[in-house]
Amino acid sequence: MHDQYHDRIRHPMLRARITSAAAAAALIDNGMTIGMSGFTRAGDAKAVPLALAERARRDPLQITLMTGASLGGDVDKVLTQAGVLARRLPFQSDPTLRAAINRGEVMFIDQHLSETVELLRSGQIAPVDIAIIEAVAITDSGAIIPTTSVGNSASFALLADKVIVEINLAQPLALEGLHDIFIPQHRPHRAPIPLMTASDRIGTTAIMIPLEKIAAIVITEKTDSSSTVLAADDDTAAIAAHLVAFFEREVALGRLTERLMPLQAGIGTIANAVMSGFIDSPFRHLTMYSEVLQDSTFDLFDAGKLDFASGSSITLSAARGEQVFGDFGRYKDRLVLRPQEVSNHPEVVRRLGIIAINTALEADIYGNVNSTHVGGTHMMNGIGGSGDFARNAYLAVFATKSLAKDGKISSIVPMVSHVDHNEHDVDVIVTEVGLADLRGLAPRERAQAIIENCVAAPFRQMLRDYVAAANRRGGHTPHVLEQALSWHVRYGATGSMLPDTDTEPSPTRQAMSISEGKVRMS
Amino acid sequence: MHDQYHDRIRHPMLRARITSAAAAAALIDNGMTIGMSGFTRAGDAKAVPLALAERARRDPLQITLMTGASLGGDVDKVLTQAGVLARRLPFQSDPTLRAAINRGEVMFIDQHLSETVELLRSGQIAPVDIAIIEAVAITDSGAIIPTTSVGNSASFALLADKVIVEINLAQPLALEGLHDIFIPQHRPHRAPIPLMTASDRIGTTAIMIPLEKIAAIVITEKTDSSSTVLAADDDTAAIAAHLVAFFEREVALGRLTERLMPLQAGIGTIANAVMSGFIDSPFRHLTMYSEVLQDSTFDLFDAGKLDFASGSSITLSAARGEQVFGDFGRYKDRLVLRPQEVSNHPEVVRRLGIIAINTALEADIYGNVNSTHVGGTHMMNGIGGSGDFARNAYLAVFATKSLAKDGKISSIVPMVSHVDHNEHDVDVIVTEVGLADLRGLAPRERAQAIIENCVAAPFRQMLRDYVAAANRRGGHTPHVLEQALSWHVRYGATGSMLPDTDTEPSPTRQAMSISEGKVRMS
Repeated sequence: MHDQYHDRIRHPMLRARITSAAAAAALIDNGMTIGMSGFTRAGDAKAVPLALAERARRDPLQITLMTGASLGGDVDKVLTQAGVLARRLPFQSDPTLRAAINRGEVMFIDQHLSETVELLRSGQIAPVDIAIIEAVAITDSGAIIPTTSVGNSASFALLADKVIVEINLAQPLALEGLHDIFIPQHRPHRAPIPLMTASDRIGTTAIMIPLEKIAAIVITEKTDSSSTVLAADDDTAAIAAHLVAFFEREVALGRLTERLMPLQAGIGTIANAVMSGFIDSPFRHLTMYSEVLQDSTFDLFDAGKLDFASGSSITLSAARGEQVFGDFGRYKDRLVLRPQEVSNHPEVVRRLGIIAINTALEADIYGNVNSTHVGGTHMMNGIGGSGDFARNAYLAVFATKSLAKDGKISSIVPMVSHVDHNEHDVDVIVTEVGLADLRGLAPRERAQAIIENCVAAPFRQMLRDYVAAANRRGGHTPHVLEQALSWHVRYGATGSMLPDTDTEPSPTRQAMSISEGKVRMS
Repeated sequence: MHDQYHDRIRHPMLRARITSAAAAAALIDNGMTIGMSGFTRAGDAKAVPLALAERARRDPLQITLMTGASLGGDVDKVLTQAGVLARRLPFQSDPTLRAAINRGEVMFIDQHLSETVELLRSGQIAPVDIAIIEAVAITDSGAIIPTTSVGNSASFALLADKVIVEINLAQPLALEGLHDIFIPQHRPHRAPIPLMTASDRIGTTAIMIPLEKIAAIVITEKTDSSSTVLAADDDTAAIAAHLVAFFEREVALGRLTERLMPLQAGIGTIANAVMSGFIDSPFRHLTMYSEVLQDSTFDLFDAGKLDFASGSSITLSAARGEQVFGDFGRYKDRLVLRPQEVSNHPEVVRRLGIIAINTALEADIYGNVNSTHVGGTHMMNGIGGSGDFARNAYLAVFATKSLAKDGKISSIVPMVSHVDHNEHDVDVIVTEVGLADLRGLAPRERAQAIIENCVAAPFRQMLRDYVAAANRRGGHTPHVLEQALSWHVRYGATGSMLPDTDTEPSPTRQAMSISEGKVRMS
């Protein structure tokens, strides 16, 4: 009966394992750890998790869920509402799950995206019982061909006891050959990762696991959720222009060539706009060595600016997705998708000399960056790959609009309320106001560069006054400690970081407020 | 006249370049950038910098000084007092220089120790005009054989316009052959660093530079400054015992073998005590892949516990130094010294799977660590290599005594006043009270593990109360933002983090106080 899937399930024996999503979900026991495909809404398992939620409504159970990064299709929302998630790692971007995390109901472990499978491989976190992997096909040796993301799928499948495969007929077979599956060896006897340019292929095009580990196959045909990136606006265009001008100066100084260095860009509206800014730049023969490839990647291909793009997923707007996957041959030989352990690996990032462009939720006058915690306490999405890239990059850029909430929040504050990237790892801060080049500067110099170049007018004098008072106290990194977080406290109490506002107090506003549009969400 | 140095200066032409320290110092112009040997008081240039200070007292000048890490022999003190230092990077540990930094008089750029020469190589910070390198000898091709440290010496010498060599007759010729000089290629065309075990040799035993770059040679015979590490006490012994018990459990669980993984230990009393704790442990055939090799390294060799040690310097107590360098053949084939770019390289640290043990100045209930800033503002020494190791380690341990200042300071606080290592990079916190294993835990769980295992009794209930109040506000990482730094503020005002103290207020005490003995100072 299943012979119609011979191109998708190439070993006849495996076709007998086709079953319903409900039957596959029944393999999952209470307390298990599940490793699921999915990275930035791309290539996620779409049927079995929903069947699991359905089952949990009748027969409550809880699991630890690991993925690559964020999921689409409301999967995290539905699983949260069904009470299925006891623990979740290493990233998420779902409003319902986020709220449950912030109520302390779901234990969320926010990890550098390159590290999750490293911890699994060395037995330092609970092992994966079952992997659920979306695939375009299974080869006749049982190897799994992923779809629009690799994420952690390969290591989940290799390390799990059992594997459930979702064959997604809506994902084109043309994706076969796109992937490069390379798994680092166990430590301490590991060889170098033999990757020396963004376009190198060092692995296999499918995930090689023993045939007998495939416990169930489910057929689906739901497309990936589209990107939620917003269109560029005046602010994001200004940020892009400041960065292009900065790189032009670097080229003029002989530090960079017109090829720049391999580019990484976080997901989201600002990073996408910055990448689009390269379309009208003088730079050529660019390459990307990034996590997620967004619309801007294909805009750069179409503009003849980009030679090659390496990522761990492709996440596009609906219209761009139709065009790209409808004519995939046009791009395929200039693309590769890798495990996130490789796309984000410190070894490779440092070796290639990546220019890393990520989004800050807020930054402080010394260049410390908060990427994750609204008001210092409430999780937005997670650190994602920003730490993998920023720490090891040739140049680490953090971009943010200078204001949020109609100007009531300054994204540049005296002291960030949570630190994801400290001053050692932040080379450039750019807002629509301007760009601060922090390389080789001491903290007191960094403060001046950031305040004079990046801060919106209403807050600039306030920060100058803060620095003057702090300098009177002394120190390498001067602060008035009892006022360092006062802007956040004031916002929580009054709804504005500006003093003497007559806005009504709202104790919960602090945690709910900073606009989501500016946050990276890979 | 200089023929007596034929074993130290092997090319006859070079012997003609022997000159006085004052004449060598005269090569340095106002505004220059000088790259000097020296890492953890070992192998530092000893004569020319003092001659430079002497000259500056008559004829003021200012320079940017880069080194490997800290210097001995009061060099930083003397240079500071002579007003020579405009900028200093990437590390220091001198009280006089530290005070000048904290007054804002010397611009200090606190860097990950693996990164300084990467920035130099790519032209992202000002180039080195003159390198001053201590050597045991210069080969007949003009290659420089370093002494007790490599640090950044090789890249400084390669990148500088001119090189001044200090031939130190007090450093034994037996050091020749100890070093392994490997320089990563320029990016983006860089090959992997071909180092796969701590004992691999991948470079040359001397720094290969063109003969003609050696502008002056100065003969010295002053020994390295001795280590300032204190003897183990009950607290450091308890910390070591908790860690040994932890590793015994990891072995019992099958995660580690009796060889553990290659060990890195920060410099200082606590790290030295922890390493000494392995002498009476069941572990065998240990290796070190670290920055600085201290007395404990040689104690472990003598106890038959350690097979090999790789570092960037050897810094010993006076007595241990006499013994080791007096009988160096006994240890030499089990030792290698590398450039700090290699000893600390993220690529190698991640590949080998290092167990990294570093010292915290303070940690917070969520596992964020402050390694550098007393009271959040005043620089102690610098981040050193702790970030290179902790971010990329197999396991990142941070150790601290739970109390400082006779119990008036808790080293575990609600929120650290400065973040050098965030919760993503901190796997284990250990104090004399106990050990918190944070792997795989969400922030609320981390808080409980740290409070119940690591905090001294007087502060434990205070932190429980803080967490209870914070949890009522909600969030992934709950805080009462207006109280998060109140312990530090109270200490600044009253001289104690404990409430209701009748100690006299002292606004400057906060910045002066936390005992230096507990701080890493590599």
